[in-house]
Amino acid sequence: MSSAFVTLEGLEGVGKSTNLAYLEQLLVAAGEKVVVTREPGGTPLGEQIRQWVLMGDHAGLPAEVETLLMFAARAQHLNEVIRPALADGAWVLCDRFTDATFAYQGGGRGAAIDLLEQLKRAIQRDLEPDLTLLFDAPVEVGFERIANRAHDHFEREDHSFFDKVRTTYLELAERYPERIKRIDATQSLDTVQQELSGHLSELLQRTTTDG
Amino acid sequence: MSSAFVTLEGLEGVGKSTNLAYLEQLLVAAGEKVVVTREPGGTPLGEQIRQWVLMGDHAGLPAEVETLLMFAARAQHLNEVIRPALADGAWVLCDRFTDATFAYQGGGRGAAIDLLEQLKRAIQRDLEPDLTLLFDAPVEVGFERIANRAHDHFEREDHSFFDKVRTTYLELAERYPERIKRIDATQSLDTVQQELSGHLSELLQRTTTDG
Repeated sequence: MSSAFVTLEGLEGVGKSTNLAYLEQLLVAAGEKVVVTREPGGTPLGEQIRQWVLMGDHAGLPAEVETLLMFAARAQHLNEVIRPALADGAWVLCDRFTDATFAYQGGGRGAAIDLLEQLKRAIQRDLEPDLTLLFDAPVEVGFERIANRAHDHFEREDHSFFDKVRTTYLELAERYPERIKRIDATQSLDTVQQELSGHLSELLQRTTTDG
Repeated sequence: MSSAFVTLEGLEGVGKSTNLAYLEQLLVAAGEKVVVTREPGGTPLGEQIRQWVLMGDHAGLPAEVETLLMFAARAQHLNEVIRPALADGAWVLCDRFTDATFAYQGGGRGAAIDLLEQLKRAIQRDLEPDLTLLFDAPVEVGFERIANRAHDHFEREDHSFFDKVRTTYLELAERYPERIKRIDATQSLDTVQQELSGHLSELLQRTTTDG
């Protein structure tokens, strides 16, 4: 038994959901307790904020307002779900976390990075994901894959917005190479899952040895 | 014609609403354009957050989550209501503003003052109220006056909570003596309104001369 905090990041259409389910299976097979959650969301407050920000119930919120709402939801999510699960010895698999706020609200919408850094420190304190899997693909690839889905507020943004989001994700991966592992999401599913399995085994070993 | 940003602060039951209406009358009589608003509230997002935080729809939110929600609502309120009104040459009378977050979420509930200061700087930037009227009375006085009202989440808190809120308000008044004027709300309404009228005349003169 071990415990770790793993986040999945990337644009829509890069295969996060499929691969999140795959990671969960691997962990369950390894006898680990797993909590799967997502941001924004994961608590009643978070789901409501998800509705506001993603579904555009409050259309045209400025980037800094979105940022504050995201961190309010995150603080609640950390308190109610993530910290208790980790304290309970579970693995937490979270579909998007703070890196997404840097990518979408920061890179995409232009919220001040200063504010993001301050909020990150204030809300996460000493907690960082043990591993962040960044599913990366050119914007067009994700676009094609989600062509048939209903689109949320962000998915209706234009191409240049997503280019900025992707660029910010890649910059974060360069800045935190130990934590963030870029997965080339244009590869075959088999190849992607081999990589995932490798990263997970390494982390399982690391956390079990540490613990 | 002039323009200024005036906030009213204090516990429930100290006469803010009555005196806000009085101030509005004075300004209208002086030929000023007036926008009356409140926090949390003043925008659809703000009213929803008001419902959550005050009415306890999401009971037991941690102090830092409340704080982030308050500042999210405030950022929106500044963008949509307060800054445009001031730019338009109006007076803005606002029932509670950032001092209330320091008093309630900070002093009352223990949110880190550091976080509050950072958020204040990030959201208000260069904007501060030109005048803050702090309606002050011992906690018991307000309690008696609101005995017959329906009570929100904060009004159901205990006596020591309100003592901390009041103490924080008084500390803010000591720290910003130029901006925050303490009004002894145990005085007769006539006396209170004479004081208000004095503060307002002074500000009218100041803003008209400046402009």
